[in-house]
Amino acid sequence: MQLIDGKAVAAQMRKEIAEEVLRIRQSGGKIPHLAAVLVGHDGGSETYVANKVRTCEEVGFQSSLIRYEEDVTEEELLACVDRLNRDADIDGFIVQLPLPDHISEQKIIEAIDYRKDVDGFHPINVGRMSIGLPCYVSATPAGILELLRRYEIETKGKHCVVLGRSNIVGKPMAMLMMQKNYPGNCTVTVCHSRSENLKEMCLSADIIVVALGVPEFLKADMVKEGAVVIDVGTTRMPSSVTRSGYKLAGDVKFDEVSPKCSYITPVPGGVGPMTILSLMRNTLHAGKKSIYE
Amino acid sequence: MQLIDGKAVAAQMRKEIAEEVLRIRQSGGKIPHLAAVLVGHDGGSETYVANKVRTCEEVGFQSSLIRYEEDVTEEELLACVDRLNRDADIDGFIVQLPLPDHISEQKIIEAIDYRKDVDGFHPINVGRMSIGLPCYVSATPAGILELLRRYEIETKGKHCVVLGRSNIVGKPMAMLMMQKNYPGNCTVTVCHSRSENLKEMCLSADIIVVALGVPEFLKADMVKEGAVVIDVGTTRMPSSVTRSGYKLAGDVKFDEVSPKCSYITPVPGGVGPMTILSLMRNTLHAGKKSIYE
Repeated sequence: MQLIDGKAVAAQMRKEIAEEVLRIRQSGGKIPHLAAVLVGHDGGSETYVANKVRTCEEVGFQSSLIRYEEDVTEEELLACVDRLNRDADIDGFIVQLPLPDHISEQKIIEAIDYRKDVDGFHPINVGRMSIGLPCYVSATPAGILELLRRYEIETKGKHCVVLGRSNIVGKPMAMLMMQKNYPGNCTVTVCHSRSENLKEMCLSADIIVVALGVPEFLKADMVKEGAVVIDVGTTRMPSSVTRSGYKLAGDVKFDEVSPKCSYITPVPGGVGPMTILSLMRNTLHAGKKSIYE
Repeated sequence: MQLIDGKAVAAQMRKEIAEEVLRIRQSGGKIPHLAAVLVGHDGGSETYVANKVRTCEEVGFQSSLIRYEEDVTEEELLACVDRLNRDADIDGFIVQLPLPDHISEQKIIEAIDYRKDVDGFHPINVGRMSIGLPCYVSATPAGILELLRRYEIETKGKHCVVLGRSNIVGKPMAMLMMQKNYPGNCTVTVCHSRSENLKEMCLSADIIVVALGVPEFLKADMVKEGAVVIDVGTTRMPSSVTRSGYKLAGDVKFDEVSPKCSYITPVPGGVGPMTILSLMRNTLHAGKKSIYE
């Protein structure tokens, strides 16, 4: 069993991006600029956005944080999106989800100029990914592909089972793994809460991507010998041991599943650290205008 | 075994749409208007477009056929698309594919205003379908869903295997069958030319959608007792018997597979007749502006 060290790969990517920013700086090019919009004071969102801003600094990007209180109106937020769309200095931006209930997340996402949509949530980016055209791929699936690539994991013709059908992980993951690419060219199965035959499916899988948000869902008797297991779960569980007062729980019963795997991602330190770096790479593409003019 | 009679369902849909057009006419509303752009004189394309125009007449739509010779430039075709985009009387239009090699099909598709893209090929419509938002769904997958619906075939929790990963059938079919909808809520597997375990997958399927374009690909030993089989294949084979000089061959070895099925679509007379009616329904939506303003 080989542990997939997302932390190390993320560190390597951070280094590569920082080097490229240095080259851009030395040649007098435009330094990529990411803006993040944060509404309210949700603990998780605060942490994610702070990490994004810090990583921008580490790789040498410019970053801007725009904060609104919980009671911001949808209209105000749309006006903010519009300003960022028109601001030539901002190469890409994200609106941190979730948003308060009185604001339509979908409306906000669709208002973002797809050429600055470095989260890859806009329907145009989703559609282009499905068709196989250049686009911003959302960060979690992009991070998983990068792990498969860096560990040179064979995917062609393999059976990849994706557990979960969310718009930001399960569905894009499935679309990517079926494309005529590496990583890709898999037979892909998507299972979810309604699936009658989930266990049999998992048992026939060469690669399992678990993105259900159910701690310890995947157990040893659901995994065949030699499988690759990618754990996207990041449920926050209360903890009296950690400084933050919580710890992250994955969707895989790691202790019993890992001995059967050829490769497996831990939680934390697997998929998680890759997500922010995928966002950074999208921002680099945005700055260089290498996907859209 | 019950034969799914696409011809009969299509006739019923044609009647329903015609009745709705009559109501629109009686209330003084706008009659839906579909334009079709045809480049060159490919036999298949000529037939498809002629059928579309004729069906428009049958349901009471206005239709316009715009013809170009094989040597039309990409620029001229883009100018035509632009005119149709801006023509307020045209509710929806299609550019019949395939196009000559010197024209980028993708460029033409992306130039179409997604609100008039009744073929559902524009990345925005593809992305919205994937996310589960209202959109134009491309005609073949939409026609298959309609057949499943009208025959009240149970799909929730079932294993649907899609053979083929084309942008216009396989991929959208897979995305639709995994949505939280009826028809849908399936465990979905996409197999293709690179799949190592295609036969085992098919044998575990409750519903098989075959869209490979390989005549008689699906054989009896690949299908379990009681499966639902949807045959999207329409390969033109030379024939000395038919008036046209060809006959359509499906992807299913019908004689040996059909006795094992609970439901099966024949070729011709299964999925084929539904495709044009799905385009008509999209055009009706376009005329009523029921999906986009």
